[in-house]
Amino acid sequence: MSVEPDTANHPGLLAAVRGPQDVKRMSTEQLGILAAEIRDFLVAKVSRTGGHIGPNLGVVELTLALHRVFDSPRDRLLFDTGHQAYVHKILTGRQDGFDRLRQRDGLSGYPSQAESEHDLIENSHASTALSYADGLAKAYALRGESRAVAAVVGDGALTGGMCWEALNNIATAGNPLVIVVNDNGRSYSPTIGGLADHLSTLRLNPSYERVLDTVREALGSTPLVGRPMYEVLHAVKRGIKDAVAPQAMFEDLGIKYVGPVDGHDIVAVEGALRAAKNFGGPVIVHAVTRKGYGYRPAEEDEADCLHGPGGAFNVETGQLVAAPTVKWTHVFADELVAIADERPDVVGITAAMAEPTGIAKLARKYPERTYDVGIAEQHAATSAAGLALGGLHPVVAVYATFLNRAFDQVLLDVAMHKLPVTFVLDRAGITGPDGPSHYGMWDMSVFGVVPGLRIAAPRDAATLREELREAVAVNDGPTIVRFPTGAVAADLPALRRVGPVDVLAESARTDVLLVAVGSFAGLGVQVAGRVAEQGYGVTVVDPRWVRPAPAELVELAAGHRLVVTVEDGVRVGGVGDALAQAMRDADVEVPVKDLGVPADWHPHGTRAQILADLGLTAQDVARDVTGWISRLDVDAEDALASEPVGSVVTPREAPAPK
Amino acid sequence: MSVEPDTANHPGLLAAVRGPQDVKRMSTEQLGILAAEIRDFLVAKVSRTGGHIGPNLGVVELTLALHRVFDSPRDRLLFDTGHQAYVHKILTGRQDGFDRLRQRDGLSGYPSQAESEHDLIENSHASTALSYADGLAKAYALRGESRAVAAVVGDGALTGGMCWEALNNIATAGNPLVIVVNDNGRSYSPTIGGLADHLSTLRLNPSYERVLDTVREALGSTPLVGRPMYEVLHAVKRGIKDAVAPQAMFEDLGIKYVGPVDGHDIVAVEGALRAAKNFGGPVIVHAVTRKGYGYRPAEEDEADCLHGPGGAFNVETGQLVAAPTVKWTHVFADELVAIADERPDVVGITAAMAEPTGIAKLARKYPERTYDVGIAEQHAATSAAGLALGGLHPVVAVYATFLNRAFDQVLLDVAMHKLPVTFVLDRAGITGPDGPSHYGMWDMSVFGVVPGLRIAAPRDAATLREELREAVAVNDGPTIVRFPTGAVAADLPALRRVGPVDVLAESARTDVLLVAVGSFAGLGVQVAGRVAEQGYGVTVVDPRWVRPAPAELVELAAGHRLVVTVEDGVRVGGVGDALAQAMRDADVEVPVKDLGVPADWHPHGTRAQILADLGLTAQDVARDVTGWISRLDVDAEDALASEPVGSVVTPREAPAPK
Repeated sequence: MSVEPDTANHPGLLAAVRGPQDVKRMSTEQLGILAAEIRDFLVAKVSRTGGHIGPNLGVVELTLALHRVFDSPRDRLLFDTGHQAYVHKILTGRQDGFDRLRQRDGLSGYPSQAESEHDLIENSHASTALSYADGLAKAYALRGESRAVAAVVGDGALTGGMCWEALNNIATAGNPLVIVVNDNGRSYSPTIGGLADHLSTLRLNPSYERVLDTVREALGSTPLVGRPMYEVLHAVKRGIKDAVAPQAMFEDLGIKYVGPVDGHDIVAVEGALRAAKNFGGPVIVHAVTRKGYGYRPAEEDEADCLHGPGGAFNVETGQLVAAPTVKWTHVFADELVAIADERPDVVGITAAMAEPTGIAKLARKYPERTYDVGIAEQHAATSAAGLALGGLHPVVAVYATFLNRAFDQVLLDVAMHKLPVTFVLDRAGITGPDGPSHYGMWDMSVFGVVPGLRIAAPRDAATLREELREAVAVNDGPTIVRFPTGAVAADLPALRRVGPVDVLAESARTDVLLVAVGSFAGLGVQVAGRVAEQGYGVTVVDPRWVRPAPAELVELAAGHRLVVTVEDGVRVGGVGDALAQAMRDADVEVPVKDLGVPADWHPHGTRAQILADLGLTAQDVARDVTGWISRLDVDAEDALASEPVGSVVTPREAPAPK
Repeated sequence: MSVEPDTANHPGLLAAVRGPQDVKRMSTEQLGILAAEIRDFLVAKVSRTGGHIGPNLGVVELTLALHRVFDSPRDRLLFDTGHQAYVHKILTGRQDGFDRLRQRDGLSGYPSQAESEHDLIENSHASTALSYADGLAKAYALRGESRAVAAVVGDGALTGGMCWEALNNIATAGNPLVIVVNDNGRSYSPTIGGLADHLSTLRLNPSYERVLDTVREALGSTPLVGRPMYEVLHAVKRGIKDAVAPQAMFEDLGIKYVGPVDGHDIVAVEGALRAAKNFGGPVIVHAVTRKGYGYRPAEEDEADCLHGPGGAFNVETGQLVAAPTVKWTHVFADELVAIADERPDVVGITAAMAEPTGIAKLARKYPERTYDVGIAEQHAATSAAGLALGGLHPVVAVYATFLNRAFDQVLLDVAMHKLPVTFVLDRAGITGPDGPSHYGMWDMSVFGVVPGLRIAAPRDAATLREELREAVAVNDGPTIVRFPTGAVAADLPALRRVGPVDVLAESARTDVLLVAVGSFAGLGVQVAGRVAEQGYGVTVVDPRWVRPAPAELVELAAGHRLVVTVEDGVRVGGVGDALAQAMRDADVEVPVKDLGVPADWHPHGTRAQILADLGLTAQDVARDVTGWISRLDVDAEDALASEPVGSVVTPREAPAPK
């Protein structure tokens, strides 16, 4: 494939596609040309913006076929792990948006109801689409609406327990429903687990090619309209009889199985989908695809760097354009290996994201001490509990947003059993281009309620290394170490340490205690400088261990006139809020202002843009702090001037209740 | 079976069993007698205390066989949904504890590490044991320890996605591991789903009896020592070849399958377990049992009331001894049907607990509008999202403790999509005899962070009906309606309403605003009376909608000198804490004292006992409130007396930072 970015902008056929109806009219030959044009378009556009290039190159023909067979938006197309919906966006009138893909106010990297009536699931978490589909199919059945539902799910997502729950229910309900398994043999890293082994046996089977031929014969070349479904299914079954047959598993559950079909043969895929749509019950269509298909750097990408490059990449090489930086992930990965060198009881767990979380580095050195559990965060947490019961110290590395899926397991299976498991949460806080469902901003609130669980938020490379070591030294309960996405923050040494709390800046006056959580430490020091210019003294501290609030932090708070907290997490129930509660409990009546991320759905953009939108910049915070502390002065003077001696003090004149 | 409670206390063989070694020595004949004695013992004891009688009667022979084949505690026995561990407790030296089963300071109704070295998983949530087992087996493999691991899991728990995640990983790892599927065809209610249909087809198959005969022949009568495993497996396979074969499904995943065996034939079960233990890889032993086996009222118990009667029951009839009361659940169940009568778009969802949550009442009247999804809370939430996208308003009724399993799904799949789904949380707060993993005390904190989700906590039958109707009238996001276990609280009419907030008591003085959450409203009114005796005026309010804090509640707070909140949920991030944050945000500087359940693992006992232990009685709260408000008077006088005019006020003299 030769890519000509300059001419790829709206080439021949693609430029004319403004909606699914345009694709429905095309001939087989035209579809082949269109597929090539879409690949050129994807590579040209995504190489400039970054985005999920690999998965989308793999679903070009599949998506074309879906839009030919189904009548979206009347029929419902659901994309599990929505980053595989770029082609769907291209075919539903959003080509022009790709110049600003994943940029603020630009096209979302996921389906978006605000963008299009063709979009439904905005969530990027895997394994959910079949559950949505079950609900939709039940609703249409109950309401007597004749609308088809098709869900596209990766073989990797099938390792998630939700899919199993959904398949059970879909089988029981028996409603018409097409489940397309997009089987490329890898989720982020190669898909693991018994099911994956089973599917890959199938792919490696010598009879596989023959199977595909038979399928093509049965489905591809003959018009299917009017042919009884059972004939088609029977033909398909005959074809795969000699292969290892995944239909056994699905049909044990009561779901019909069609496949495997070559996911890059549009005629074959379309035939299978049409047959499945007309069947009148739940059907699985098993499409075998190749991630990155048609774009050599992505196809040959063993480490899967082109799954979803975060920024622009070189079209010829697939290499990122931006200069490499040292990221939080790298610091963690290196230190984990160093710890593992010293401690044979330390083992690593990843949920299908060995490379992005840095666990891959441990896996390369200690493969027998690293476990990839698949896209299965629940199992990651509870199997870690089992490992800990067996005398090991597991380090579970996941994106912050994904640990929410294992809240109950962390609470009961790990914490209630007081088991030493360390959860390392990468991409915590506002992450940026992937938008709200990827924002890891809930962890410090939600996991802050878990008894006996301690949360550390390192501020730089040195404290990440230090706090990770402290975490794996804890032996009576779980710990979380959380840090944001991107380049690690500049080193910021402490002036002194009070208990676990690092003092980063202080002055002769102790007006304001500024509690800067994690990577906001640098911002805290900048704020202190600006506020000092207004004549107020600010003590800047990094609590290091942020939940529960350290007693020393409460004592420090008591020595100031105002406490301001700033954190890269949701304000409700966050670090600042928990400190305020601890201060109430200790009768420390210093006012608290807690800054952080409002509990809301914040759009995609760069991390810096979103934080600026939220007023979480040094300039904004300094203005807030100066305003609050000067207001305290005014209030205090007013109070002294206006209070009649001997009266009962009410803290503030308040309006009467309405 | 005739039960003689008075003579059942330590009869012949059972009395002599003080540990697993005593069972290992017994002959087959003795084991049969012992099994009968254990059943007599269970019925006699549990009929007095209440407890999970049905499941335990079904696992008598299975547990005997487990302790004969495995060497606990060196080998590890894991009981999924630990309420099926009574027989295990009996066999491990805890017979004497059954007189105080599930009572404060008495025997736990679940495994407990504090009770016995034979216990491991203290969590009562289903579908976790296989994940623990995977972790343990991996740890023993890595450490080179030769210890066997066996996990007992119900067929109902297999509908939970965690089991699927675990099976995938167990198959991949290939470590020795015995998974006993205790298949009684029902979890609480009959098990649903494709897998269940598949298993029940097997049970109904005419060749089933023949299968059992063959299995008995192959395993039962011949000593297995020295026989090659493959012969045994081969014999078993031959036996079930004519039946619908569940082994296909499991063996597709790479896990060996043995069964089905008659779970009440101890020789057969023991043979299968021994073969499985010696196999050297993961093996599933499929034991078919009958819930309540050997006790007629439990066996004939269609509605499954004898799954886990909450209190004493009549041995002859199986009927509860306590007079029936109107429970929160009944009020909800009746009102849901009334709403469904008026609104055809309202549908119900239960996760395998139709009777205990009251959804059964809806199911009887509108079976086509009620969905039992199995023990699958994740799917319950996300399929509800799908139903809502399809134009319906789902009401998902679960125990409060179980919604934690679907936090991510509620957050992203429901709330981020602004879908109208109502979650009804029964057994919220401190529940009592089932202990910490059943306490539904996290909901108001954890789900309080979810943007756009509103939480109601009704105080009595009238407000439950009213708030449920308000919840299903919300059409732009999810709602939670939560209430405790047991008899519904006495009606407590409001004096007046301010926004959503009900004022329940007030006086001429406005010293204290007492915010009483949900069922604590009655306590609040009692507290007000006691505090009034000390000369202070208390306004008692029930916010009704507790998260987010109503603006009117913040305004009311501003009109008082002290705000006290009291809630049946965890204090950290709870209703009181959120109100304090809302007050900070509104610059309302009235001090807040937030009472609730400390974030800790509270033991089992009655709900009243536990609440008393936590100081959540009218007497305790009144003493606290009086102390705080009188202290405010003293502080105010001190402040006025000691402050030099013109100085800057620091709210409190504080120690210097250490």
